[in-house]
Amino acid sequence: MDNLFQITAELTQTEVLRYTPAGIPVLDVMLKHESWQVENGQKCLVKFELPAKIVGEQAKQWQYRENTMVKASGFLAQRNQQIFKPILRIQNIQEYKG
Amino acid sequence: MDNLFQITAELTQTEVLRYTPAGIPVLDVMLKHESWQVENGQKCLVKFELPAKIVGEQAKQWQYRENTMVKASGFLAQRNQQIFKPILRIQNIQEYKG
Repeated sequence: MDNLFQITAELTQTEVLRYTPAGIPVLDVMLKHESWQVENGQKCLVKFELPAKIVGEQAKQWQYRENTMVKASGFLAQRNQQIFKPILRIQNIQEYKG
Repeated sequence: MDNLFQITAELTQTEVLRYTPAGIPVLDVMLKHESWQVENGQKCLVKFELPAKIVGEQAKQWQYRENTMVKASGFLAQRNQQIFKPILRIQNIQEYKG
């Protein structure tokens, strides 16, 4: 069952690195996206900020990388049980070099 | 600039087909997703409902297809200016046959 989101975005905020009770590093970040997309032949400007998190060893590498453009991919999940506020759970992240 | 989301989901609601002032058909739908994903080696259950819309001729084909499992792809956008409530703007949709 597919759930795969790929995005190019700016890492606008990185929180303080935290650890789960099991000792796994987790980094909460904010991704700011802006792009032109094509829908039914018409261009449209898309802008949003999407919370994301990185779990595991790679979380450590990104804690001081605010203002970096990144390519990230992962799956979308909801942050709480009520309404669908999405969070991107990043499985891969790398610097975007254009 | 990537913004590509691929999802397998159930088409749980389809609204009445509407037309833009320029005569383009638009279908608003709801996608219900449930899957197991892997994050840092751990399985986790992901469930949510995500609003989506189909713009253009293919909108017509889906108006009476509630309860169909589909594979859809498109880009995420926000529905309004305030907080980021996402909507998937579907560029491709097909029946999911497992």
